[in-house]
Amino acid sequence: MEKDQTPSEKPGHPPVQAILHEVRTAENSAAYLLPKLQSMKEFTSHLKLLDVGAGSGTISVSFAKLIPDGHVTGIDLNPNILPRARAVAEKAGVKNIEFQQGSVYKLPFADETFDVTCCHQVLIHIGTPWDALHEMLRVTKRGGIVAAREGDYETEGIWPELPELGKFHKLMAGLMSAGGGTPTAGRQLLSWALKVGVEQSQITLSYSTSSYHTPSERKLCSQGLCDQLRGGSLREKALKFGLGTENDFEEMAKAWEEWAKRDDASLAMLHGEILVQK
Amino acid sequence: MEKDQTPSEKPGHPPVQAILHEVRTAENSAAYLLPKLQSMKEFTSHLKLLDVGAGSGTISVSFAKLIPDGHVTGIDLNPNILPRARAVAEKAGVKNIEFQQGSVYKLPFADETFDVTCCHQVLIHIGTPWDALHEMLRVTKRGGIVAAREGDYETEGIWPELPELGKFHKLMAGLMSAGGGTPTAGRQLLSWALKVGVEQSQITLSYSTSSYHTPSERKLCSQGLCDQLRGGSLREKALKFGLGTENDFEEMAKAWEEWAKRDDASLAMLHGEILVQK
Repeated sequence: MEKDQTPSEKPGHPPVQAILHEVRTAENSAAYLLPKLQSMKEFTSHLKLLDVGAGSGTISVSFAKLIPDGHVTGIDLNPNILPRARAVAEKAGVKNIEFQQGSVYKLPFADETFDVTCCHQVLIHIGTPWDALHEMLRVTKRGGIVAAREGDYETEGIWPELPELGKFHKLMAGLMSAGGGTPTAGRQLLSWALKVGVEQSQITLSYSTSSYHTPSERKLCSQGLCDQLRGGSLREKALKFGLGTENDFEEMAKAWEEWAKRDDASLAMLHGEILVQK
Repeated sequence: MEKDQTPSEKPGHPPVQAILHEVRTAENSAAYLLPKLQSMKEFTSHLKLLDVGAGSGTISVSFAKLIPDGHVTGIDLNPNILPRARAVAEKAGVKNIEFQQGSVYKLPFADETFDVTCCHQVLIHIGTPWDALHEMLRVTKRGGIVAAREGDYETEGIWPELPELGKFHKLMAGLMSAGGGTPTAGRQLLSWALKVGVEQSQITLSYSTSSYHTPSERKLCSQGLCDQLRGGSLREKALKFGLGTENDFEEMAKAWEEWAKRDDASLAMLHGEILVQK
Protein backbone atom coordinates (compact mmCIF):
# COMPACT_ATOMS: atom_id res chain seq x y z
CA MET A 1 0.00 0.00 0.00
CA GLU A 2 2.83 2.33 0.78
CA LYS A 3 3.68 4.10 -2.39
CA ASP A 4 7.41 4.29 -1.75
CA GLN A 5 7.60 0.59 -1.21
CA THR A 6 9.46 -1.34 -3.88
CA PRO A 7 8.69 -5.03 -3.67
CA SER A 8 11.53 -7.47 -3.80
CA GLU A 9 12.63 -8.78 -7.18
CA LYS A 10 13.15 -12.13 -5.52
CA PRO A 11 10.34 -12.99 -3.13
CA GLY A 12 11.79 -13.79 0.28
CA HIS A 13 14.83 -11.55 -0.26
CA PRO A 14 13.95 -7.95 0.46
CA PRO A 15 15.92 -4.99 -0.85
CA VAL A 16 17.51 -2.66 1.73
CA GLN A 17 14.65 -0.17 1.60
CA ALA A 18 12.17 -2.93 2.44
CA ILE A 19 14.29 -3.80 5.50
CA LEU A 20 13.42 -0.34 6.84
CA HIS A 21 9.76 -1.39 6.76
CA GLU A 22 10.46 -4.86 8.06
CA VAL A 23 11.70 -3.68 11.45
CA ARG A 24 8.09 -2.68 12.06
CA THR A 25 6.11 -4.77 14.52
CA ALA A 26 2.81 -4.36 16.36
CA GLU A 27 4.89 -3.55 19.45
CA ASN A 28 6.91 -0.69 17.92
CA SER A 29 4.32 0.57 15.42
CA ALA A 30 0.92 -0.11 17.01
CA ALA A 31 1.59 0.18 20.75
CA TYR A 32 -1.43 2.53 21.03
CA LEU A 33 -3.71 -0.34 19.92
CA LEU A 34 -2.29 -3.14 22.08
CA PRO A 35 -4.05 -2.43 25.42
CA LYS A 36 -7.39 -2.36 23.57
CA LEU A 37 -6.52 -5.55 21.67
CA GLN A 38 -5.63 -7.21 24.98
CA SER A 39 -8.95 -6.25 26.60
CA MET A 40 -10.89 -7.42 23.52
CA LYS A 41 -8.97 -10.73 23.62
CA GLU A 42 -10.07 -11.28 27.22
CA PHE A 43 -13.68 -10.97 26.04
CA THR A 44 -13.29 -13.21 22.98
CA SER A 45 -10.10 -15.00 21.96
CA HIS A 46 -11.26 -15.60 18.37
CA LEU A 47 -10.63 -12.05 17.19
CA LYS A 48 -10.56 -11.31 13.48
CA LEU A 49 -8.10 -8.56 12.58
CA LEU A 50 -7.59 -6.86 9.21
CA ASP A 51 -4.27 -5.11 8.55
CA VAL A 52 -4.74 -2.74 5.62
CA GLY A 53 -1.65 -1.92 3.55
CA ALA A 54 0.22 -4.80 5.13
CA GLY A 55 3.27 -4.48 2.87
CA SER A 56 5.81 -7.12 3.74
CA GLY A 57 3.64 -8.19 6.64
CA THR A 58 5.85 -7.83 9.70
CA ILE A 59 3.21 -5.90 11.64
CA SER A 60 0.45 -8.32 10.54
CA VAL A 61 2.56 -11.30 11.65
CA SER A 62 3.21 -9.82 15.07
CA PHE A 63 -0.53 -9.16 15.48
CA ALA A 64 -1.16 -12.82 14.60
CA LYS A 65 1.25 -13.87 17.35
CA LEU A 66 -0.65 -11.68 19.82
CA ILE A 67 -3.98 -13.34 18.99
CA PRO A 68 -3.01 -17.02 18.55
CA ASP A 69 -6.66 -18.14 18.75
CA GLY A 70 -7.74 -15.38 16.37
CA HIS A 71 -7.02 -14.72 12.71
CA VAL A 72 -5.26 -11.96 10.80
CA THR A 73 -5.87 -10.90 7.20
CA GLY A 74 -3.25 -8.69 5.59
CA ILE A 75 -4.23 -6.82 2.46
CA ASP A 76 -2.11 -4.76 0.09
CA LEU A 77 -2.76 -2.96 -3.17
CA ASN A 78 0.52 -4.25 -4.57
CA PRO A 79 0.27 -7.95 -5.48
CA ASN A 80 4.07 -8.20 -5.87
CA ILE A 81 4.64 -7.71 -2.13
CA LEU A 82 2.38 -10.65 -1.13
CA PRO A 83 4.99 -13.43 -1.61
CA ARG A 84 7.35 -11.55 0.69
CA ALA A 85 4.61 -11.16 3.33
CA ARG A 86 3.84 -14.89 3.14
CA ALA A 87 7.57 -15.67 3.48
CA VAL A 88 7.76 -13.47 6.59
CA ALA A 89 4.80 -15.34 8.12
CA GLU A 90 6.26 -18.73 7.24
CA LYS A 91 9.67 -17.85 8.69
CA ALA A 92 7.94 -16.78 11.92
CA GLY A 93 5.98 -20.05 12.02
CA VAL A 94 2.71 -18.12 12.07
CA LYS A 95 -0.28 -20.03 10.65
CA ASN A 96 -3.31 -17.92 11.65
CA ILE A 97 -2.73 -15.41 8.89
CA GLU A 98 -3.46 -14.87 5.21
CA PHE A 99 -2.46 -12.16 2.75
CA GLN A 100 -4.41 -11.00 -0.28
CA GLN A 101 -4.52 -8.19 -2.79
CA GLY A 102 -7.02 -5.37 -2.46
CA SER A 103 -7.64 -1.63 -2.18
CA VAL A 104 -8.48 0.23 1.01
CA TYR A 105 -11.07 2.12 -1.05
CA LYS A 106 -12.91 -1.11 -1.88
CA LEU A 107 -12.12 -3.76 0.69
CA PRO A 108 -13.16 -7.24 -0.60
CA PHE A 109 -15.08 -8.11 2.56
CA ALA A 110 -18.69 -8.06 3.71
CA ASP A 111 -19.92 -5.43 6.18
CA GLU A 112 -19.00 -6.09 9.81
CA THR A 113 -16.45 -8.85 9.16
CA PHE A 114 -13.60 -7.84 11.50
CA ASP A 115 -13.23 -7.08 15.20
CA VAL A 116 -10.23 -4.86 14.51
CA THR A 117 -9.36 -3.07 11.26
CA CYS A 118 -6.08 -1.20 11.32
CA CYS A 119 -3.51 0.45 9.11
CA HIS A 120 -0.02 1.93 9.48
CA GLN A 121 1.37 4.63 7.18
CA VAL A 122 -1.36 4.10 4.59
CA LEU A 123 -3.68 7.12 4.85
CA ILE A 124 -0.68 9.49 4.51
CA HIS A 125 -0.14 8.23 0.94
CA ILE A 126 -3.66 8.38 -0.51
CA GLY A 127 -5.89 11.08 -1.95
CA THR A 128 -9.09 10.74 0.08
CA PRO A 129 -8.11 9.15 3.40
CA TRP A 130 -11.56 9.77 4.87
CA ASP A 131 -13.03 7.42 2.22
CA ALA A 132 -10.54 4.79 3.35
CA LEU A 133 -11.60 5.28 6.98
CA HIS A 134 -15.24 4.96 5.92
CA GLU A 135 -14.49 1.69 4.17
CA MET A 136 -12.49 0.41 7.14
CA LEU A 137 -15.46 1.22 9.38
CA ARG A 138 -17.81 -0.63 7.02
CA VAL A 139 -15.97 -3.96 7.33
CA THR A 140 -15.64 -3.61 11.12
CA LYS A 141 -18.17 -5.20 13.50
CA ARG A 142 -20.28 -3.03 15.79
CA GLY A 143 -18.34 -2.80 19.02
CA GLY A 144 -15.12 -3.32 17.06
CA ILE A 145 -12.20 -0.97 16.55
CA VAL A 146 -10.76 0.91 13.60
CA ALA A 147 -7.19 2.02 14.23
CA ALA A 148 -4.72 4.10 12.22
CA ARG A 149 -1.19 5.37 12.84
CA GLU A 150 0.16 7.87 10.35
CA GLY A 151 3.34 9.93 10.25
CA ASP A 152 3.43 13.68 10.24
CA TYR A 153 6.20 14.38 7.84
CA GLU A 154 6.40 18.09 8.58
CA THR A 155 7.44 17.27 12.16
CA GLU A 156 10.56 15.42 11.08
CA GLY A 157 13.58 16.56 13.10
CA ILE A 158 17.03 15.74 11.71
CA TRP A 159 20.38 16.43 13.37
CA PRO A 160 22.98 17.54 12.32
CA GLU A 161 21.44 20.17 10.07
CA LEU A 162 23.28 19.28 6.86
CA PRO A 163 21.82 21.45 4.06
CA GLU A 164 21.33 18.48 1.73
CA LEU A 165 19.21 16.74 4.40
CA GLY A 166 16.98 19.81 4.54
CA LYS A 167 16.57 19.49 0.77
CA PHE A 168 15.80 15.79 1.15
CA HIS A 169 13.10 16.61 3.70
CA LYS A 170 11.48 19.00 1.19
CA LEU A 171 11.84 16.41 -1.59
CA MET A 172 9.98 13.81 0.48
CA ALA A 173 7.15 16.20 1.38
CA GLY A 174 6.98 17.28 -2.27
CA LEU A 175 6.85 13.67 -3.46
CA MET A 176 4.10 12.85 -1.02
CA SER A 177 2.01 15.82 -2.12
CA ALA A 178 2.71 15.19 -5.83
CA GLY A 179 1.52 11.61 -5.36
CA GLY A 180 -1.75 12.83 -3.85
CA GLY A 181 -0.77 12.15 -0.23
CA THR A 182 -0.80 14.35 2.87
CA PRO A 183 2.56 15.11 4.55
CA THR A 184 0.74 16.30 7.69
CA ALA A 185 -1.46 13.20 7.96
CA GLY A 186 -0.64 12.60 11.64
CA ARG A 187 -2.23 15.82 12.84
CA GLN A 188 -5.25 15.42 10.53
CA LEU A 189 -6.41 11.94 11.59
CA LEU A 190 -8.95 13.33 14.03
CA SER A 191 -10.45 15.64 11.40
CA TRP A 192 -10.72 12.77 8.90
CA ALA A 193 -12.55 10.58 11.42
CA LEU A 194 -14.98 13.40 12.24
CA LYS A 195 -15.50 14.00 8.51
CA VAL A 196 -16.97 10.50 8.02
CA GLY A 197 -19.49 11.02 10.80
CA VAL A 198 -17.72 9.40 13.72
CA GLU A 199 -18.64 11.04 17.04
CA GLN A 200 -15.91 12.66 19.13
CA SER A 201 -16.82 10.31 21.99
CA GLN A 202 -15.92 7.29 19.86
CA ILE A 203 -12.39 8.55 19.13
CA THR A 204 -9.18 8.28 21.14
CA LEU A 205 -6.36 10.37 19.70
CA SER A 206 -2.72 10.00 20.69
CA TYR A 207 0.72 10.85 19.37
CA SER A 208 3.95 8.85 19.40
CA THR A 209 7.39 8.98 17.82
CA SER A 210 9.73 6.97 15.65
CA SER A 211 13.44 7.62 15.56
CA TYR A 212 16.77 6.39 14.24
CA HIS A 213 19.83 7.17 16.33
CA THR A 214 21.82 4.09 17.35
CA PRO A 215 24.77 3.24 15.02
CA SER A 216 22.90 0.26 13.55
CA GLU A 217 19.68 2.26 13.08
CA ARG A 218 21.59 5.08 11.40
CA LYS A 219 23.35 2.64 9.08
CA LEU A 220 20.10 0.92 8.11
CA CYS A 221 18.28 4.20 7.58
CA SER A 222 21.11 5.72 5.54
CA GLN A 223 21.53 2.61 3.37
CA GLY A 224 17.81 2.45 2.67
CA LEU A 225 17.59 6.13 1.72
CA CYS A 226 20.79 6.02 -0.37
CA ASP A 227 19.42 3.02 -2.28
CA GLN A 228 16.21 4.94 -2.95
CA LEU A 229 18.08 8.08 -4.01
CA ARG A 230 20.50 6.22 -6.27
CA GLY A 231 18.17 3.76 -7.93
CA GLY A 232 14.86 3.17 -6.19
CA SER A 233 11.27 4.17 -6.88
CA LEU A 234 11.77 7.38 -4.91
CA ARG A 235 14.36 8.58 -7.44
CA GLU A 236 12.18 7.46 -10.33
CA LYS A 237 9.13 9.37 -9.05
CA ALA A 238 11.13 12.46 -8.09
CA LEU A 239 12.56 12.65 -11.61
CA LYS A 240 9.09 12.11 -13.10
CA PHE A 241 7.61 14.95 -11.02
CA GLY A 242 10.61 17.22 -11.76
CA LEU A 243 11.51 17.52 -8.07
CA GLY A 244 15.26 17.37 -8.59
CA THR A 245 18.15 16.21 -10.76
CA GLU A 246 20.26 13.08 -10.58
CA ASN A 247 23.06 15.26 -9.22
CA ASP A 248 20.79 16.58 -6.46
CA PHE A 249 19.93 13.04 -5.40
CA GLU A 250 23.59 12.00 -5.35
CA GLU A 251 24.39 14.97 -3.09
CA MET A 252 21.56 13.96 -0.77
CA ALA A 253 22.79 10.37 -0.68
CA LYS A 254 26.29 11.56 0.27
CA ALA A 255 24.77 13.67 3.05
CA TRP A 256 22.94 10.60 4.43
CA GLU A 257 26.23 8.70 4.38
CA GLU A 258 27.86 11.50 6.36
CA TRP A 259 24.87 11.57 8.76
CA ALA A 260 25.22 7.83 9.42
CA LYS A 261 28.86 8.32 10.47
CA ARG A 262 28.10 11.12 12.95
CA ASP A 263 27.84 9.97 16.56
CA ASP A 264 25.54 12.89 17.39
CA ALA A 265 23.10 12.19 14.55
CA SER A 266 19.45 11.39 14.95
CA LEU A 267 16.20 11.53 13.02
CA ALA A 268 12.82 11.59 14.73
CA MET A 269 9.22 12.12 13.67
CA LEU A 270 5.81 12.51 15.24
CA HIS A 271 3.01 10.08 14.41
CA GLY A 272 -0.70 10.59 15.01
CA GLU A 273 -2.84 7.64 16.13
CA ILE A 274 -6.59 7.16 16.37
CA LEU A 275 -8.70 4.43 17.83
CA VAL A 276 -12.33 4.57 16.70
CA GLN A 277 -14.86 2.53 18.64
CA LYS A 278 -17.56 1.49 16.16
CA MET B 1 14.18 28.50 35.17
CA GLU B 2 11.80 28.65 32.25
CA LYS B 3 12.05 32.10 30.82
CA ASP B 4 8.42 32.35 29.79
CA GLN B 5 7.24 31.58 33.27
CA THR B 6 5.56 34.42 35.11
CA PRO B 7 5.42 33.77 38.83
CA SER B 8 2.18 34.33 40.62
CA GLU B 9 1.53 37.72 42.16
CA LYS B 10 -0.05 35.91 45.09
CA PRO B 11 1.97 32.85 46.11
CA GLY B 12 -0.28 29.81 46.11
CA HIS B 13 -2.53 31.20 43.38
CA PRO B 14 -1.04 30.60 39.96
CA PRO B 15 -1.98 32.58 36.85
CA VAL B 16 -3.46 30.65 33.93
CA GLN B 17 -0.14 30.31 32.12
CA ALA B 18 1.39 28.69 35.20
CA ILE B 19 -1.44 26.14 35.20
CA LEU B 20 -0.09 24.93 31.85
CA HIS B 21 3.16 24.10 33.62
CA GLU B 22 1.46 22.71 36.69
CA VAL B 23 -0.15 19.79 34.87
CA ARG B 24 3.40 18.46 34.55
CA THR B 25 4.32 15.45 36.66
CA ALA B 26 7.18 12.96 36.69
CA GLU B 27 4.77 10.49 35.09
CA ASN B 28 3.79 12.67 32.10
CA SER B 29 7.06 14.62 31.73
CA ALA B 30 9.83 12.25 32.87
CA ALA B 31 8.50 8.79 31.97
CA TYR B 32 11.86 8.02 30.27
CA LEU B 33 13.60 8.36 33.65
CA LEU B 34 11.18 6.37 35.82
CA PRO B 35 12.35 2.78 35.06
CA LYS B 36 15.93 3.84 35.89
CA LEU B 37 14.76 5.61 39.06
CA GLN B 38 12.86 2.47 40.08
CA SER B 39 15.90 0.23 39.61
CA MET B 40 18.12 2.68 41.53
CA LYS B 41 15.53 2.75 44.34
CA GLU B 42 15.73 -1.04 44.64
CA PHE B 43 19.46 -0.67 45.23
CA THR B 44 19.19 2.20 47.70
CA SER B 45 15.95 3.75 48.94
CA HIS B 46 17.65 6.93 50.21
CA LEU B 47 18.10 8.50 46.79
CA LYS B 48 18.95 12.20 46.54
CA LEU B 49 17.40 13.84 43.48
CA LEU B 50 17.99 17.36 42.16
CA ASP B 51 15.35 18.89 39.88
CA VAL B 52 16.92 21.81 38.03
CA GLY B 53 14.57 24.58 36.87
CA ALA B 54 11.83 23.23 39.10
CA GLY B 55 9.46 26.15 38.44
CA SER B 56 6.24 25.66 40.38
CA GLY B 57 7.49 22.28 41.50
CA THR B 58 4.85 19.83 40.31
CA ILE B 59 7.42 17.50 38.72
CA SER B 60 9.72 17.76 41.77
CA VAL B 61 6.80 16.92 44.09
CA SER B 62 5.83 13.86 42.08
CA PHE B 63 9.47 12.68 42.15
CA ALA B 64 9.41 13.10 45.94
CA LYS B 65 6.31 10.87 46.12
CA LEU B 66 8.13 8.22 44.07
CA ILE B 67 11.11 8.14 46.46
CA PRO B 68 9.43 8.50 49.89
CA ASP B 69 12.62 7.40 51.70
CA GLY B 70 14.76 9.69 49.53
CA HIS B 71 14.96 13.46 49.22
CA VAL B 72 14.30 15.94 46.42
CA THR B 73 15.84 19.38 45.98
CA GLY B 74 14.16 21.71 43.50
CA ILE B 75 16.16 24.67 42.29
CA ASP B 76 15.07 27.62 40.16
CA LEU B 77 16.76 30.79 38.96
CA ASN B 78 13.62 32.77 39.73
CA PRO B 79 13.20 33.31 43.49
CA ASN B 80 9.61 34.53 43.02
CA ILE B 81 8.42 31.06 41.96
CA LEU B 82 9.71 29.34 45.11
CA PRO B 83 6.69 30.17 47.37
CA ARG B 84 4.41 28.61 44.76
CA ALA B 85 6.57 25.47 44.61
CA ARG B 86 6.50 25.19 48.41
CA ALA B 87 2.71 25.63 48.38
CA VAL B 88 2.39 22.83 45.80
CA ALA B 89 4.48 20.52 48.01
CA GLU B 90 2.51 21.44 51.14
CA LYS B 91 -0.83 20.88 49.39
CA ALA B 92 0.39 17.44 48.30
CA GLY B 93 1.50 16.64 51.85
CA VAL B 94 5.05 15.99 50.63
CA LYS B 95 7.74 16.55 53.26
CA ASN B 96 10.91 15.06 51.72
CA ILE B 97 11.50 18.09 49.51
CA GLU B 98 13.04 21.54 49.60
CA PHE B 99 13.20 24.37 47.10
CA GLN B 100 15.93 26.96 46.74
CA GLN B 101 17.18 29.61 44.35
CA GLY B 102 20.13 28.94 42.08
CA SER B 103 21.49 28.84 38.54
CA VAL B 104 22.07 25.71 36.49
CA TYR B 105 25.38 27.27 35.45
CA LYS B 106 26.59 27.41 39.07
CA LEU B 107 24.72 24.89 41.17
CA PRO B 108 25.19 25.63 44.89
CA PHE B 109 26.16 22.05 45.74
CA ALA B 110 29.39 20.12 46.26
CA ASP B 111 30.67 17.67 43.64
CA GLU B 112 28.93 14.29 43.65
CA THR B 113 26.00 15.27 45.89
CA PHE B 114 23.03 13.71 44.03
CA ASP B 115 22.11 10.26 42.74
CA VAL B 116 19.88 11.79 40.07
CA THR B 117 20.11 15.29 38.58
CA CYS B 118 17.40 16.11 36.09
CA CYS B 119 15.76 18.97 34.24
CA HIS B 120 12.70 19.52 32.06
CA GLN B 121 12.46 22.29 29.44
CA VAL B 122 15.45 24.14 30.85
CA LEU B 123 18.29 23.62 28.34
CA ILE B 124 16.01 24.83 25.50
CA HIS B 125 15.95 28.30 27.06
CA ILE B 126 19.61 28.94 27.81
CA GLY B 127 22.65 30.04 25.82
CA THR B 128 25.22 27.33 26.53
CA PRO B 129 23.25 24.20 27.46
CA TRP B 130 26.41 22.04 27.37
CA ASP B 131 27.79 24.10 30.27
CA ALA B 132 24.60 23.35 32.19
CA LEU B 133 24.98 19.62 31.47
CA HIS B 134 28.60 19.81 32.63
CA GLU B 135 27.50 21.41 35.88
CA MET B 136 24.70 18.86 36.35
CA LEU B 137 27.28 16.09 35.88
CA ARG B 138 29.57 17.71 38.45
CA VAL B 139 26.99 17.56 41.27
CA THR B 140 26.02 13.96 40.39
CA LYS B 141 27.59 10.96 42.14
CA ARG B 142 29.64 8.43 40.17
CA GLY B 143 27.19 5.76 39.13
CA GLY B 144 24.39 8.34 39.24
CA ILE B 145 22.22 9.69 36.43
CA VAL B 146 21.86 13.03 34.68
CA ALA B 147 18.58 13.30 32.80
CA ALA B 148 17.11 15.98 30.54
CA ARG B 149 13.92 16.27 28.51
CA GLU B 150 13.69 19.20 26.11
CA GLY B 151 11.15 20.18 23.49
CA ASP B 152 11.92 20.51 19.83
CA TYR B 153 9.91 23.54 18.91
CA GLU B 154 10.41 23.16 15.16
CA THR B 155 8.50 19.87 15.28
CA GLU B 156 5.32 21.46 16.60
CA GLY B 157 2.30 20.27 14.62
CA ILE B 158 -0.89 22.33 14.90
CA TRP B 159 -4.26 21.55 13.35
CA PRO B 160 -6.26 23.24 11.87
CA GLU B 161 -3.74 25.29 9.91
CA LEU B 162 -5.07 28.74 10.83
CA PRO B 163 -2.62 31.32 9.38
CA GLU B 164 -2.34 33.21 12.68
CA LEU B 165 -1.26 30.01 14.43
CA GLY B 166 1.55 29.61 11.89
CA LYS B 167 2.61 33.16 12.75
CA PHE B 168 2.43 32.32 16.46
CA HIS B 169 4.68 29.31 15.88
CA LYS B 170 7.26 31.57 14.22
CA LEU B 171 6.91 34.13 17.01
CA MET B 172 7.67 31.50 19.64
CA ALA B 173 10.73 30.17 17.79
CA GLY B 174 11.88 33.78 17.25
CA LEU B 175 11.42 34.60 20.93
CA MET B 176 13.36 31.54 21.97
CA SER B 177 16.26 32.39 19.66
CA ALA B 178 16.19 36.09 20.59
CA GLY B 179 16.41 35.09 24.25
CA GLY B 180 19.49 32.97 23.53
CA GLY B 181 17.68 29.62 23.52
CA THR B 182 17.58 26.78 20.98
CA PRO B 183 14.21 25.98 19.36
CA THR B 184 15.57 22.61 18.16
CA ALA B 185 16.93 21.60 21.60
CA GLY B 186 15.28 18.17 21.53
CA ARG B 187 17.27 16.90 18.56
CA GLN B 188 20.53 18.42 19.87
CA LEU B 189 20.62 16.84 23.35
CA LEU B 190 22.87 14.02 22.20
CA SER B 191 25.36 16.42 20.59
CA TRP B 192 25.46 18.56 23.76
CA ALA B 193 26.20 15.53 25.94
CA LEU B 194 29.00 14.42 23.60
CA LYS B 195 30.37 17.97 23.59
CA VAL B 196 31.08 17.82 27.35
CA GLY B 197 33.04 14.60 26.98
CA VAL B 198 30.40 12.03 27.84
CA GLU B 199 30.98 8.73 26.01
CA GLN B 200 28.33 7.44 23.60
CA SER B 201 28.09 4.27 25.70
CA GLN B 202 26.97 6.30 28.74
CA ILE B 203 24.04 7.91 26.89
CA THR B 204 20.52 6.66 26.24
CA LEU B 205 18.59 8.86 23.82
CA SER B 206 14.84 8.68 23.31
CA TYR B 207 12.01 10.80 21.97
CA SER B 208 8.47 11.34 23.25
CA THR B 209 5.55 13.67 22.62
CA SER B 210 3.31 16.13 24.38
CA SER B 211 -0.07 17.11 23.01
CA TYR B 212 -3.24 19.06 23.69
CA HIS B 213 -6.41 17.80 22.06
CA THR B 214 -9.22 16.99 24.49
CA PRO B 215 -11.73 19.84 25.03
CA SER B 216 -10.33 20.61 28.50
CA GLU B 217 -6.72 20.50 27.28
CA ARG B 218 -7.57 22.79 24.37
CA LYS B 219 -9.33 25.25 26.69
CA LEU B 220 -6.41 25.32 29.12
CA CYS B 221 -3.83 25.69 26.37
CA SER B 222 -5.78 28.43 24.59
CA GLN B 223 -6.43 30.37 27.81
CA GLY B 224 -2.78 30.20 28.79
CA LEU B 225 -1.56 31.38 25.40
CA CYS B 226 -4.21 34.13 25.13
CA ASP B 227 -3.21 35.42 28.57
CA GLN B 228 0.42 35.51 27.43
CA LEU B 229 -0.43 37.22 24.14
CA ARG B 230 -2.72 39.81 25.76
CA GLY B 231 -0.70 40.71 28.82
CA GLY B 232 1.96 38.19 29.82
CA SER B 233 5.72 38.14 29.69
CA LEU B 234 5.59 36.60 26.21
CA ARG B 235 3.92 39.75 24.85
CA GLU B 236 6.32 41.97 26.74
CA LYS B 237 9.41 40.19 25.35
CA ALA B 238 8.00 39.96 21.82
CA LEU B 239 7.39 43.72 21.81
CA LYS B 240 10.87 44.33 23.23
CA PHE B 241 12.50 42.22 20.50
CA GLY B 242 10.31 43.80 17.79
CA LEU B 243 8.77 40.45 16.83
CA GLY B 244 5.27 41.80 16.28
CA THR B 245 2.70 44.45 17.12
CA GLU B 246 -0.06 44.52 19.71
CA ASN B 247 -2.50 44.02 16.86
CA ASP B 248 -0.59 40.91 15.66
CA PHE B 249 -0.79 39.40 19.14
CA GLU B 250 -4.53 40.10 19.41
CA GLU B 251 -5.08 38.32 16.07
CA MET B 252 -3.07 35.34 17.31
CA ALA B 253 -5.08 35.23 20.55
CA LYS B 254 -8.34 35.21 18.56
CA ALA B 255 -6.98 32.32 16.46
CA TRP B 256 -6.18 30.34 19.63
CA GLU B 257 -9.76 30.97 20.82
CA GLU B 258 -11.08 29.64 17.51
CA TRP B 259 -8.69 26.66 17.74
CA ALA B 260 -10.00 25.77 21.21
CA LYS B 261 -13.57 25.61 19.86
CA ARG B 262 -12.70 23.26 16.99
CA ASP B 263 -13.45 19.59 17.69
CA ASP B 264 -10.77 18.51 15.21
CA ALA B 265 -8.04 20.66 16.74
CA SER B 266 -4.81 19.38 18.21
CA LEU B 267 -1.30 20.54 18.99
CA ALA B 268 1.59 18.11 19.40
CA MET B 269 5.35 18.37 19.73
CA LEU B 270 8.37 16.10 19.84
CA HIS B 271 10.66 16.08 22.88
CA GLY B 272 14.18 14.70 23.06
CA GLU B 273 15.31 12.89 26.21
CA ILE B 274 18.74 11.77 27.40
CA LEU B 275 19.86 9.66 30.31
CA VAL B 276 23.56 9.96 31.06
CA GLN B 277 25.14 7.35 33.31
CA LYS B 278 27.97 9.07 35.18
